[in-house]
Amino acid sequence: MRDLADQLGRLVSGGADAVLGSVPSALTSDATEARGLRGYGDAVVFPTTTEEVAAVTAWCYERGVPITPRGGGSGYAGGAVPNGGVVLCLERMRRVRSLEPLLWRAEVEAGVRTVDVQRLARENGLYFPPDPGAAEQSQIGGNVATNAGGPHAFKYGVTGAWVTGVEAVVPPGHVVRVGGPVRKDVAGYDLCSLLVGSEGTLGIITAVMLRFIPAIEARYPVLGFYPDARAGAAAVEACLASGVVPAALEYLDEEAIEIVRQAFPAAMPVEPCFAVIAEADGSKREASDARRVLAEALSDGALAVEEPAGIREIEALWRWREGVGFAADAVYGGKVSEDIGVPVDRLADAIEGTREIGRRRGLATCSWGHAGDGNLHATFLFSREDADARTRALAAAEDLFELTEQLGGTISGEHGVGLVKAGQLHRRWNASAVELHRKLKHLFDPANLLNPGKKAP
Amino acid sequence: MRDLADQLGRLVSGGADAVLGSVPSALTSDATEARGLRGYGDAVVFPTTTEEVAAVTAWCYERGVPITPRGGGSGYAGGAVPNGGVVLCLERMRRVRSLEPLLWRAEVEAGVRTVDVQRLARENGLYFPPDPGAAEQSQIGGNVATNAGGPHAFKYGVTGAWVTGVEAVVPPGHVVRVGGPVRKDVAGYDLCSLLVGSEGTLGIITAVMLRFIPAIEARYPVLGFYPDARAGAAAVEACLASGVVPAALEYLDEEAIEIVRQAFPAAMPVEPCFAVIAEADGSKREASDARRVLAEALSDGALAVEEPAGIREIEALWRWREGVGFAADAVYGGKVSEDIGVPVDRLADAIEGTREIGRRRGLATCSWGHAGDGNLHATFLFSREDADARTRALAAAEDLFELTEQLGGTISGEHGVGLVKAGQLHRRWNASAVELHRKLKHLFDPANLLNPGKKAP
Repeated sequence: MRDLADQLGRLVSGGADAVLGSVPSALTSDATEARGLRGYGDAVVFPTTTEEVAAVTAWCYERGVPITPRGGGSGYAGGAVPNGGVVLCLERMRRVRSLEPLLWRAEVEAGVRTVDVQRLARENGLYFPPDPGAAEQSQIGGNVATNAGGPHAFKYGVTGAWVTGVEAVVPPGHVVRVGGPVRKDVAGYDLCSLLVGSEGTLGIITAVMLRFIPAIEARYPVLGFYPDARAGAAAVEACLASGVVPAALEYLDEEAIEIVRQAFPAAMPVEPCFAVIAEADGSKREASDARRVLAEALSDGALAVEEPAGIREIEALWRWREGVGFAADAVYGGKVSEDIGVPVDRLADAIEGTREIGRRRGLATCSWGHAGDGNLHATFLFSREDADARTRALAAAEDLFELTEQLGGTISGEHGVGLVKAGQLHRRWNASAVELHRKLKHLFDPANLLNPGKKAP
Repeated sequence: MRDLADQLGRLVSGGADAVLGSVPSALTSDATEARGLRGYGDAVVFPTTTEEVAAVTAWCYERGVPITPRGGGSGYAGGAVPNGGVVLCLERMRRVRSLEPLLWRAEVEAGVRTVDVQRLARENGLYFPPDPGAAEQSQIGGNVATNAGGPHAFKYGVTGAWVTGVEAVVPPGHVVRVGGPVRKDVAGYDLCSLLVGSEGTLGIITAVMLRFIPAIEARYPVLGFYPDARAGAAAVEACLASGVVPAALEYLDEEAIEIVRQAFPAAMPVEPCFAVIAEADGSKREASDARRVLAEALSDGALAVEEPAGIREIEALWRWREGVGFAADAVYGGKVSEDIGVPVDRLADAIEGTREIGRRRGLATCSWGHAGDGNLHATFLFSREDADARTRALAAAEDLFELTEQLGGTISGEHGVGLVKAGQLHRRWNASAVELHRKLKHLFDPANLLNPGKKAP
């Protein structure tokens, strides 16, 4: 598609250097590669300004060329996997447009990496709580487009809770800005929240206005080990009843623990079993008080309760926790990992149900996730060479969606819908609501060229 | 309109008792009555179930009859002032459908009063932070429909931050439920946030799923007095730079203080002047530590700094603060009070600008509000008999919107658009975004029968 590339080259600065006439394989997949998902595209463009994004969008829209916006490509739903047409990479849009630490706010472009937003806050005495995995790879635009979560979403909310404004390009190539450096705004419908989490299907997010809070002095996690999921889930509920709001409330089931057993940063106090992590935060005194309460709450029914001391041990614990997703990839090479959310009192049912589905389908399973939010990463493992196992894993995912529906839960807590959960919304919403979803897409993108096929109801 | 009432009586339980064939004057106005706003309607209906709301909506939609949903009628934007047709009162929908204190959640119907939601939380060891004024009168459905704020929105966010799900009736009479008792959900576009704050123009909210947090042990406000708005605004910024997140960060300007001077619950330590209230909260120890930090931050440039001690004094201070809006009504009987939001570093400009507009228009002015959020209630006072002064006050409001635009602010921080700010969105959004707003309304309500004229861009 040399011709397409030539044409796009005229729309962006850097000309031919900012365009690729064929799409490298790194840009046709995301973290769903482990389940065998791969797309295709005709060209890649790397705009550096909002105006260039608008120009490319207008050009594509006029010619019926699909556009797949792309951030760091760390998504687990295939949201950045192209379906032909142009891959629009935001990575060159990485300016910090404004930073006002004393006013707790910044405006950054979509391509700024998540880790750099976190660092920007930290280096200025502030805290940006959203902490989805793969912060080194993912970009803030992608985090906002998927409304990404993470462990600390339990206390602090998901990415959208920290977005006070969005700049986006909407079809057929118009720039809109909603919200801003204002902390409350009801002047219009909440277009900002509508764009947040829309996975590039309504508009291409080019910049976001973020808010911060002052840095948190101390974080003290407590780790409890339990004989099974039911005892662990009871400990999670005990934390909720403790009067403390944990900063994070996580779990790893027995199988997940087994996978990362060797990497555990200390001696594992008991045989691998179900684990719950509750973190206390605040001033040193406050976090220390809260840790005592959480340790008490975690101790009932526990085989062991650990309190890692020292910043190094605490950071190691979180790195270990974050590593479970990658470690699961490595077990057999293939993985179908579905991010479901259930009412927190159905957590044990969801964990046990996942295991039961795996047994029925003849697959190794494990799960871990954000226990306090009832948000599971329910995972089926298989060898990438085993096509039959892969088919069974995809069928297991369908079973899982059915289970989720029965438990009154959602098919996606934080990873999004992308390609892999397209067509599942009827499990969650009635026909009238699904119809509104369809109409919203059509309103923004009547030609269905913006990330087509993604987040489809 | 006996005939209309008879027909409606067939759709709701209670029959003729649940319908009024003429609209009492209490139901043709809201808190905008002080500026002379009053509407009219043809009938009132009081449904008790979602199905009845759907039946009434379908009946009206089929016949082209406008519907004005109505909660407590405490709004400051005319959002509940009818423009003919049917007034649909939610007050009989006041069931608590579920309450699970240990899981921090409840589902309540739209007609439950705000004060009852707060009480429900408190009596179960929990906290529901949204605290818009008039909690005795207002209903949770109205709070959600306007995305109401309040003093504690500074730390805890506006009403929408506490809504995990919405049940609503959308034209032509369908029930939709989005979200639920799940804390994270990206299965579909964020229809929940779109309905929150839509002021009954996209759908009629019939029930909401709310989340809570554990009760806060202590609240310690600190009160600083300053020679002028600039010194007060500097104190507000000093609080932001202090490292503490105040639970609330409020101000009253010199004229507002003068209005409520007699009601001040203690001896006023200095001549009435600009006041800032910063509240520390948390465990007793934590709140006490934070109070010390905030008192220090407030002391620079202050004429006096007070720390009310004891629960009674603290409650009295908040009652006094909340009373300023009502007290302003009483000064001359007439009031145009506009709720604008500006970036917090433009707070002094907005306060002084309000005063300057009043001077130019020959009107008494005062302002107060949520300083930390840059959210002002900028008020012009006049005698209700003085038609000319009223005209000048409305012109002053237009000047104020222009000023807000210059300061990069929003025409509504928390009160909504209603009738009184209809047509102002172009000051905040560009033409493409305004066009999306219009299309969204048309998508949900193609016949423009749901609260017509409200929140119009």
